[in-house]
Amino acid sequence: MDRSIIRHILGRVMMIEAALMLLPAVVGLFYAEYMDSLIYVCTAAGAFLLGLLFSFKKPPNRSFYLKEGCIVTSLSWVFLSLIGALPFTITGDIPSYLDAVFETVSGFSTTGASILTDVTALSHVNLFWRSFTNWIGGMGVLVFLLAIVSMNGGSSINLMRAESPGPSVGKLVPKIEHTARILYMLYLALSAIMLVLLMVGGMPLFDSFCTMFSTAGTGGFSVYNDSMGSQTLYIKALVGVFMFLFGVNFNFYYFLILRDGRKAFSIEEVRTYFGIVFICTLIIYFDLCRSFIFSADNLVDAFFQVSSIISTTGFSSTNFDLWGRLSITVLVILMFTGACAGSTAGGIKLSRIVLLLKTIKKEIASYIYPKSVKKIKIDGKPVEHEVQRSANVFIITYFAIFIISCLILAFEEHDFETTFSSVVTTLSNVGPGLSRVGPAENYSFYGPISKVVLIFNMLAGRLELFPVLILLHPRVWKEMLHSRLVESKNAEKKR
Amino acid sequence: MDRSIIRHILGRVMMIEAALMLLPAVVGLFYAEYMDSLIYVCTAAGAFLLGLLFSFKKPPNRSFYLKEGCIVTSLSWVFLSLIGALPFTITGDIPSYLDAVFETVSGFSTTGASILTDVTALSHVNLFWRSFTNWIGGMGVLVFLLAIVSMNGGSSINLMRAESPGPSVGKLVPKIEHTARILYMLYLALSAIMLVLLMVGGMPLFDSFCTMFSTAGTGGFSVYNDSMGSQTLYIKALVGVFMFLFGVNFNFYYFLILRDGRKAFSIEEVRTYFGIVFICTLIIYFDLCRSFIFSADNLVDAFFQVSSIISTTGFSSTNFDLWGRLSITVLVILMFTGACAGSTAGGIKLSRIVLLLKTIKKEIASYIYPKSVKKIKIDGKPVEHEVQRSANVFIITYFAIFIISCLILAFEEHDFETTFSSVVTTLSNVGPGLSRVGPAENYSFYGPISKVVLIFNMLAGRLELFPVLILLHPRVWKEMLHSRLVESKNAEKKR
Repeated sequence: MDRSIIRHILGRVMMIEAALMLLPAVVGLFYAEYMDSLIYVCTAAGAFLLGLLFSFKKPPNRSFYLKEGCIVTSLSWVFLSLIGALPFTITGDIPSYLDAVFETVSGFSTTGASILTDVTALSHVNLFWRSFTNWIGGMGVLVFLLAIVSMNGGSSINLMRAESPGPSVGKLVPKIEHTARILYMLYLALSAIMLVLLMVGGMPLFDSFCTMFSTAGTGGFSVYNDSMGSQTLYIKALVGVFMFLFGVNFNFYYFLILRDGRKAFSIEEVRTYFGIVFICTLIIYFDLCRSFIFSADNLVDAFFQVSSIISTTGFSSTNFDLWGRLSITVLVILMFTGACAGSTAGGIKLSRIVLLLKTIKKEIASYIYPKSVKKIKIDGKPVEHEVQRSANVFIITYFAIFIISCLILAFEEHDFETTFSSVVTTLSNVGPGLSRVGPAENYSFYGPISKVVLIFNMLAGRLELFPVLILLHPRVWKEMLHSRLVESKNAEKKR
Repeated sequence: MDRSIIRHILGRVMMIEAALMLLPAVVGLFYAEYMDSLIYVCTAAGAFLLGLLFSFKKPPNRSFYLKEGCIVTSLSWVFLSLIGALPFTITGDIPSYLDAVFETVSGFSTTGASILTDVTALSHVNLFWRSFTNWIGGMGVLVFLLAIVSMNGGSSINLMRAESPGPSVGKLVPKIEHTARILYMLYLALSAIMLVLLMVGGMPLFDSFCTMFSTAGTGGFSVYNDSMGSQTLYIKALVGVFMFLFGVNFNFYYFLILRDGRKAFSIEEVRTYFGIVFICTLIIYFDLCRSFIFSADNLVDAFFQVSSIISTTGFSSTNFDLWGRLSITVLVILMFTGACAGSTAGGIKLSRIVLLLKTIKKEIASYIYPKSVKKIKIDGKPVEHEVQRSANVFIITYFAIFIISCLILAFEEHDFETTFSSVVTTLSNVGPGLSRVGPAENYSFYGPISKVVLIFNMLAGRLELFPVLILLHPRVWKEMLHSRLVESKNAEKKR
């Protein structure tokens, strides 16, 4: 393993985080929270120095491969979170460092699960940083990095594979740096539009920024204790629409910019997404109304919640844990599916779900037409065997992690819904679950082991499972700790 | 589609069922339940005549293929259940015919889920028939048929593929009829031994027969309202051991008979099974005790319940719904896995689970050693790509049916645990679930649509999903209803 390049990139990541931490420090100046600002500046300085130390020595070889790409991605998120959690604890707003790490991982992984009972007790600086982590996490720190740190092609491809959500990277343009830049521009543009529209709706500047951050990243950290519960219908609808939009595959927008509407709307995953949101909204709307008299409130709540859960944002416009079983079941299923690949959403991703349903259909057909050799197609193109296999393996691994996590959490003897929904909601980066982790509750009651499991799930879910799972492989540890030792041993063996 | 052969075999199946129905009629004579006996004889006569009508015309072609094999298997179970349910309703013990069908499907599919509130209110004849359906279902009516109806090789292979539980048929000896006969002899032998041991333990003859039937078929219908709750420790331990034994891959016994113990114990699936039962028993034992003082009762309860759930029998030695969350979580996970392929158990099957865990391990390794091309091996032999693919597809289809069923059941607004466990317990042919369908409860409260869904799940689970799923394909219906029409159209197209 090439440790020098991993160390170098980690150093760069820390330096970028240091720069980003100055933003909340500036916010503190406006609210006269000087002490908090100072803490952020100091932490940033520390992170910068550490980053400098890590990245000072240039790696001899600038290209690296899948293994290193995965490891550096996972470690980046771990380091980002460990450093990002420091100011929460130092300012005293989240006294337990483990809790602070939980909150920060939840932020960077765009989950939005919180251990905070009273969000409004936080200082503006901390509140800003908390929502900002959602925004940073949303687009992926490394796609972000990609656009700044220019490295050679070989490495970037592997970073993208480890980083971008969904089964295939789906390059928009040949050059990987270009793709990253386009995605990033789209992300910025949508964020800016949303910010303006929130302020038009009368939301204060600070709240608008934080809400926009959490929506764009499909994170779901709110600056209010009741999430979006006490907002106007306009704001609810607006946030609902933008959560929905950030769950769309970004290729869709790219085609729209190219004025190729037909191509944009022909993406099967996107059509499925529109269809699912429409049908689920209808089901929940009628479940809420139980009559044919039109209710704008119910319609907005239904759409808001469907949009929030499928895009794995996790805002709540009302306490949906009190809804009927049918609506809750629909929402729980959406927690598993997630939205489109190539968006900021988490979960299994609809492209995989579409692929799997086609696989099942094909299997059934194979019993009826045994000689047929039809290939599975998506967007009119045949799906390669390797893509199918990896989608299958992904889902099975997802459920395996799900089951093992449930088992570990079961030691705490909470009710079934709490355990079950805690696991799915962290693994899919949604945020709130049901019962004791419902929208009106939080994760503070969990013991340290369960919190670590949930932190692991948030990271694994965000990074498409395998890059994080390989960190558990003993071989990786051995190589990380004794790379030279292993190399010399290998050299000996060759003799 | 060759409808004539399907009709012919269905006729044979009905005639065999008619013969089997005479057994409870005989039992009725001992208990002076003449009216009930008469009803069974009349139903048997009707079934026999109908069967004769169906099978009278010999099919022109005696060989048939996968599609027909699957359809005839699924339809056999449907017809068996529809006819087998009649006496329950005619005798008035289960007034609703839908309930009677639920109970009979539950019997033939060896599920053991019941809609009866008071089992002891049934006549001896009905009680005997109810448990007997478990035993008939256990080995698979068509493996049974195979040994009697001798047809040519081509057809049998397809029947076996549709019928036998588990990913591969695993032929013991080349001739398929031989395999069926050996399996059947083993089943009979184990059943006989169990019967004797139950009676040694002081259980009355009638109860012993019924208990043996339900254990051997891993069904779990009991003649007592508290299942095995009020039995002696000896009986509990005995039933526990035999449930465990009927969950073992029957190849294991075959090798033991050949005195090839090493080969028997080298079957990976069997070793996994032993390991899982041992570990889960330990976990639950300590969860029940919460101390290091030995308690035989707790040990037997823990083993009994693990053995009952993993073998998908569904007996209960105590109301496990009242146990701690850890124990319940372990049991719920076992509901999904099931026991070995090639046994009478249901569920996903351990051979598939082993294969999937190896797939995940390989996927992780592929990130670390990208150039490695190691093949997945089971029992030392490399696993063919097609077997891997079909195991993947099976699991995914299992979860797809699971999710859709949960969604339909959710319309009834029961609590999460009830809905969730009803679906998994029927799909895996276990029987009791949690909460409102817990071991001390029953399925009578469900509405007709939910009952139909659960009936479908029991059949789909028992027949390895796809043979039942293809019955939902419109093409199959079209062909069944207008086979000649389709054939002539096809002929036209060829011109």
